[in-house]
Amino acid sequence: MASEIWGERWASSTSDIARRYMEVASRKQSLVCLAADRRTMAGLFELIDSVGPYLAALKTHVDLVDDWTPESWSDFCEKARDADLLIFEDRKFADIGKISRDQMAGVYDIRSWSDLVTAHLISGPDIVDGLQSGWDDVGRSGGVLLLAQMSSRGNLLNPNYTDEVVAKGKSHPGVFGFIGNGSSPEELIELRLKVGSEKLIWTPGVNLVVGDGEMGQRYGHPRDAVLAGSDCIIVGSGIHRSDNPTESAKEYAQSSWNALLERES
Amino acid sequence: MASEIWGERWASSTSDIARRYMEVASRKQSLVCLAADRRTMAGLFELIDSVGPYLAALKTHVDLVDDWTPESWSDFCEKARDADLLIFEDRKFADIGKISRDQMAGVYDIRSWSDLVTAHLISGPDIVDGLQSGWDDVGRSGGVLLLAQMSSRGNLLNPNYTDEVVAKGKSHPGVFGFIGNGSSPEELIELRLKVGSEKLIWTPGVNLVVGDGEMGQRYGHPRDAVLAGSDCIIVGSGIHRSDNPTESAKEYAQSSWNALLERES
Repeated sequence: MASEIWGERWASSTSDIARRYMEVASRKQSLVCLAADRRTMAGLFELIDSVGPYLAALKTHVDLVDDWTPESWSDFCEKARDADLLIFEDRKFADIGKISRDQMAGVYDIRSWSDLVTAHLISGPDIVDGLQSGWDDVGRSGGVLLLAQMSSRGNLLNPNYTDEVVAKGKSHPGVFGFIGNGSSPEELIELRLKVGSEKLIWTPGVNLVVGDGEMGQRYGHPRDAVLAGSDCIIVGSGIHRSDNPTESAKEYAQSSWNALLERES
Repeated sequence: MASEIWGERWASSTSDIARRYMEVASRKQSLVCLAADRRTMAGLFELIDSVGPYLAALKTHVDLVDDWTPESWSDFCEKARDADLLIFEDRKFADIGKISRDQMAGVYDIRSWSDLVTAHLISGPDIVDGLQSGWDDVGRSGGVLLLAQMSSRGNLLNPNYTDEVVAKGKSHPGVFGFIGNGSSPEELIELRLKVGSEKLIWTPGVNLVVGDGEMGQRYGHPRDAVLAGSDCIIVGSGIHRSDNPTESAKEYAQSSWNALLERES
């Protein structure tokens, strides 16, 4: 079923984890990744309970949870898997390869539970090998999402930078895909042209209500993002700050899913 | 005394933490920051014991210590302070301002013990405000070192990128200084010209034995780095992998200190 829905993206994929994402998204009829930016474990559990069925993935920031413990996090990850969600740690790794590999370990032990992580390619492409070595060290596999565009104020990911990231990342088997700017369909269309059909593009900066957010964040519409080439919309406050998160999650799922069907039809 | 030794750098400084560094370095007659890339707490304690007297600062990666506990880390930081060392968490923050602020908290609680942290300006200058808010949240102050150059293979910090980082960072009071490429005196001279005399430049990629390291790391000589404008040399394997770390640390301290006296005379 995923193979029919995802068309060329499925056909050209060479990555197990990318296909796993496409399958999850198809089962749940949702291209939504929730930005689970909660600072308490209770808040995180609550999110899975209320909106888990409408998500394909959960984006975490393990390092900003104040009452984190290894046990509670392990329970949280198990609950996420039971809810058929990929776990995506938005760590924005940005060191050299050797250090990044070790940063997958430590107390948070990201390598042992993450399916996906973000990285900036700023320090050089060895970072992808370093992160992949991290997963290898515990006999797991995962995918790296490289930051190719951002929507934050004054960011330095200009078109030349994006070109370099895409050129170095598009043929690397450890690269799952790219983070694009969901607030700008024009930029996304350009990015998709550069990336080609194989790698996935995931996009934060989307909201059913477009406008400006806190501290330099802007928003675009989920449908526009998917039609422009996004394969997953990363939604934060649009869901967890809404009066009815469950209803909101359902709306984001429908909007993104319908846009995918429209795009691939 | 620091005021005489550091010349223009001291005179033009507007930052408490920058002056604190210059004082520590003068007391200890060392511009050496040790890259304490150990993965056990015992290894970290051992480093302070063996080389603490010859260092001005300790560069940590809290997130790659496998047996980290809040108590042991607190003891480690106290020991570092007793040894008159600044603590510099090389976290390479690279998210937007709001997230970076929260990442200063969490289990590692970096805001509560770090004097300095590194950040990439890639996501935009709000990151500096976010990190400063992190320290504010616990009533402490600290300084941000922005990555302006790197020496790792295939890195994307080209001269235009460096220019943007310096332009945005050089007048920001929350920016302590810049990380420059210690393996290339030519690049460092250019960086110092762009930065001017106020902000500090710290440089990894130095070693008394020059050549190539692991996974894309290259090395330059400490003396060349300081003469080219570096105010602190960040040394890793040159000290902790040497047969006699204490002697090596002493040599790095002397080499860097003599180069400073030569530069400012």
